[in-house]
Amino acid sequence: MTSMFEHDLDAGAANYVPLSPLSFLPRAAHVWPDKTAVIHGDRRVSYRDLHARACRLASALTRRGIGRGDTVAVMAPNIPPLLEAHFGVPMAGAVLNALNTRLDAGAIAFILAHSEAKFLIADREYGAVIKGALAQLERPITVVEIDDPVRDPAVGERIDGIDYEALLAEGDPAFAWQPPADEWQAIALNYTSGTTGNPKGVVFHHRGGYLNALGNVIAFGLSDRAVYLWTLPMFHCNGWSYPWAVTAVGGTHVCLRRVAAAPIFAAIAAHKVTHLCAAPTILSMLIHAPDTEKVGFDHVVEIATGGAAPPSPVISAMERLGFRVTHLYGLTESFGPATICQWQTDWAALDRDGKASKMARQGVGYPTLEALMVADPKTLAPVPADGVTIGEIMLRSNTVMKGYLKNPSATAEAFHGGWFHTGDLGVLHPDGYVEVKDRMKDVIISGGENISSLELEELIYKHPAVMEAAVVARPDETWGETPCAFVTLKPDAALDAAALIAWCRERIAHFKAPKTVVFGPLPKTATGKIQKFVLRDRAKAL
Amino acid sequence: MTSMFEHDLDAGAANYVPLSPLSFLPRAAHVWPDKTAVIHGDRRVSYRDLHARACRLASALTRRGIGRGDTVAVMAPNIPPLLEAHFGVPMAGAVLNALNTRLDAGAIAFILAHSEAKFLIADREYGAVIKGALAQLERPITVVEIDDPVRDPAVGERIDGIDYEALLAEGDPAFAWQPPADEWQAIALNYTSGTTGNPKGVVFHHRGGYLNALGNVIAFGLSDRAVYLWTLPMFHCNGWSYPWAVTAVGGTHVCLRRVAAAPIFAAIAAHKVTHLCAAPTILSMLIHAPDTEKVGFDHVVEIATGGAAPPSPVISAMERLGFRVTHLYGLTESFGPATICQWQTDWAALDRDGKASKMARQGVGYPTLEALMVADPKTLAPVPADGVTIGEIMLRSNTVMKGYLKNPSATAEAFHGGWFHTGDLGVLHPDGYVEVKDRMKDVIISGGENISSLELEELIYKHPAVMEAAVVARPDETWGETPCAFVTLKPDAALDAAALIAWCRERIAHFKAPKTVVFGPLPKTATGKIQKFVLRDRAKAL
Repeated sequence: MTSMFEHDLDAGAANYVPLSPLSFLPRAAHVWPDKTAVIHGDRRVSYRDLHARACRLASALTRRGIGRGDTVAVMAPNIPPLLEAHFGVPMAGAVLNALNTRLDAGAIAFILAHSEAKFLIADREYGAVIKGALAQLERPITVVEIDDPVRDPAVGERIDGIDYEALLAEGDPAFAWQPPADEWQAIALNYTSGTTGNPKGVVFHHRGGYLNALGNVIAFGLSDRAVYLWTLPMFHCNGWSYPWAVTAVGGTHVCLRRVAAAPIFAAIAAHKVTHLCAAPTILSMLIHAPDTEKVGFDHVVEIATGGAAPPSPVISAMERLGFRVTHLYGLTESFGPATICQWQTDWAALDRDGKASKMARQGVGYPTLEALMVADPKTLAPVPADGVTIGEIMLRSNTVMKGYLKNPSATAEAFHGGWFHTGDLGVLHPDGYVEVKDRMKDVIISGGENISSLELEELIYKHPAVMEAAVVARPDETWGETPCAFVTLKPDAALDAAALIAWCRERIAHFKAPKTVVFGPLPKTATGKIQKFVLRDRAKAL
Repeated sequence: MTSMFEHDLDAGAANYVPLSPLSFLPRAAHVWPDKTAVIHGDRRVSYRDLHARACRLASALTRRGIGRGDTVAVMAPNIPPLLEAHFGVPMAGAVLNALNTRLDAGAIAFILAHSEAKFLIADREYGAVIKGALAQLERPITVVEIDDPVRDPAVGERIDGIDYEALLAEGDPAFAWQPPADEWQAIALNYTSGTTGNPKGVVFHHRGGYLNALGNVIAFGLSDRAVYLWTLPMFHCNGWSYPWAVTAVGGTHVCLRRVAAAPIFAAIAAHKVTHLCAAPTILSMLIHAPDTEKVGFDHVVEIATGGAAPPSPVISAMERLGFRVTHLYGLTESFGPATICQWQTDWAALDRDGKASKMARQGVGYPTLEALMVADPKTLAPVPADGVTIGEIMLRSNTVMKGYLKNPSATAEAFHGGWFHTGDLGVLHPDGYVEVKDRMKDVIISGGENISSLELEELIYKHPAVMEAAVVARPDETWGETPCAFVTLKPDAALDAAALIAWCRERIAHFKAPKTVVFGPLPKTATGKIQKFVLRDRAKAL
């Protein structure tokens, strides 16, 4: 029996429109037609023109036979064509697959085959890799190449594809694109970096893109006065949904072809950047940049960082440079940010370390996250809020992926029990804040005891000579595994393994201290994450 | 044929949760448990306690047999129980029907009968009216009465119902309430003021409440630092969704039992209010308050106003008092605000009148509004963006009502052609901003020519002696209708009808000038809207 509130009160065209972040662009073009939407080198693109260019792209793709359910791959740094593709590709009904620009030809070929991409748009910088991948691909694919004027012409090579600007010229700037018929329709496809086995294709839906973008606006305080610097790669879970979030409020996108301290500081000063997102390694890079590259600025820059928690000296050093750091946590599967370390006013009274230990936690659910739980991975029983009991972090949200493409078993495993299993181990503090203790696969089991690699890394980061550190398990006949630390020292700093181990043993249970220390640079992914699987291989080979 | 993106990638518990603004309260209680959620007189309620009280209400209602599809009516000023009901009633699965506190017993009885309310929660101030309504109602209904400590005990009377606090005491503060199974489920019911015939019951859905609340957060710049003063009645389209919006960001609700200049200024100064919403008449009231009531404050207060456009002298006077005025437009059917007169930076260079004429427009679609059109009501052909051609304003949005309760013909008429017809006539300016010219039914047709009552009111407002004005049609044998102006003068100002008519004729086409002027106070609805239907009756009787 339906109640009177469900009778003759159905959803229709006037009161139900599928949620999609694509709607933000025509609105921005309507409200702020002449405002600068994009800055790239000397170029300025207004919202009217960004909208027209996205329409041209959608129109040209449509004319070339691309439509609903087709994959369009893009390999580019944070330049206008990749931003345009975040709108233009799904405006054609297609699915955007932004490729990690650090991948090699084999990985690209694997992804192009798995995603069944019909179209590939690539920047000439990656010409050699792209040609290598295409040679491995067993079917033809339409290739479009971007000749970015900001690219160093000495880098990269021609791909013999259609010129990107010529493709846009084929399209209609007033193209009557169709919004998705269903908000559950796919908008983007992102391959996880795949620390083991082949990468998995994470499928995003329009509903989640819309909601996560609004969540960003609210969590990060974006408005039409926002000037957002593109340090975080747009290929990394669609730049945490910021291509859509910044557009939703009519902010300005500042493109950045090369992520390095000098162009970041220069862009902040030149364009009065207000917001940026970056991996913790970028924060280290900014702090340790030579003074000649550190252009000063007289406003506060909001910086959101994710992945590993920023160590307290990093937070303090960033504040001295004029940044305000907010710590986010999430995964590709959650469209990027799922939690925020929400600042509490009473933290201001804490000392530096007290403040930093609060700020280093992953925090509470994002405004648009429906539920966050730390629980037993098998029984789903939540852990007590004691800051000690370890459980797996699980999410329930409209900002969780549709699933893994063509991988129902991995999808079912990830969604076991009606929760998304992050694979991250953490605790719930008495104040309701979550703290990640380790990736499930990064826990070191030594003599039957669990050692958190993250906890040990945090300690090593506090040593004044250390710039970066990562700890992995090293196989051991007696103990099963022992902690092995890979450490990069600060310029001009000196430290030997025995001294560091002794320093650790003074501060932590002896069995948790590293047994091995290796000095040198750390291998990283394109997004600045330390590649622990490389280090695990090295530890095994020692 | 479904694509690979729609295969084995269904929505489930982990990645699809029905949108509901109810989710904001448990999140706020988790993130800000000890923060002040509500200020009412000397009382302070934390978010932990607001959540517990809403759970108690939901639990008590459930134990008393209230469930999905049941209506719970509340008659109260802007005090904590009405805020609690915005969460507690739908947490029980029921539908909140907040009653206009200015209605008489007959209108209340009509609404209680039409809404089939099973439960009525009422403040003792309205004891006599409630008892009168119950006497007219042909069935029993459970009555709960609120004995608000802030109420002047000389006002109102006992209703002989269950005490509100006793009802809460019946409930479980940890009640495991069920979120809506479907985001299209009804959350609230609001009766339009009904200028002609019986009021219509506008049904709100959870999806729209969630989205409009986020739209408010973004449009009005709410954050956890927001201190929101409850001047706009919560019974008026659920206070434009602000009970949910302020809670979404963990802001503080400042209740206000009596809307008058003195308590408003006092609350702003005492609690450092940052945001409030109010009808234009409240703005006039603040401006014309005696200096003894105007308590100064040293911060900028954001004030959103809706309904009639604020005349330029009102905007300027408010700015001098320390307020920043934003003009919104919407209807009960659109959950309150649907458009915003988005400030453009280049307006700052305009003179006072130029700025005010920009700011008086209804503006552009809200961040969460999907489409806004000015079009021919029959053919749905959009008008050109010339600022001159009149059409009806139409909306398409997830923030449009489900429809009118038990009134499928009115629902079908309102949604004709897949657009919600606002009944407001307006123009589209070349810059894409919409301006309301008149309610369709307020247009005066004199000698076959249309006269906009709004245009004439705007002119009369500019006369230095005028405090408020409203223009309606007066039947006329020769012309069909002629404009009749009802005018309230400023204290100590003097003006006669002939002088005002002559002043108008110098500034407007002669046929548009009023033929009749009546001086005196204007009749208003509970939300401060001038009751034109009363004036039309008076004009007819002249």
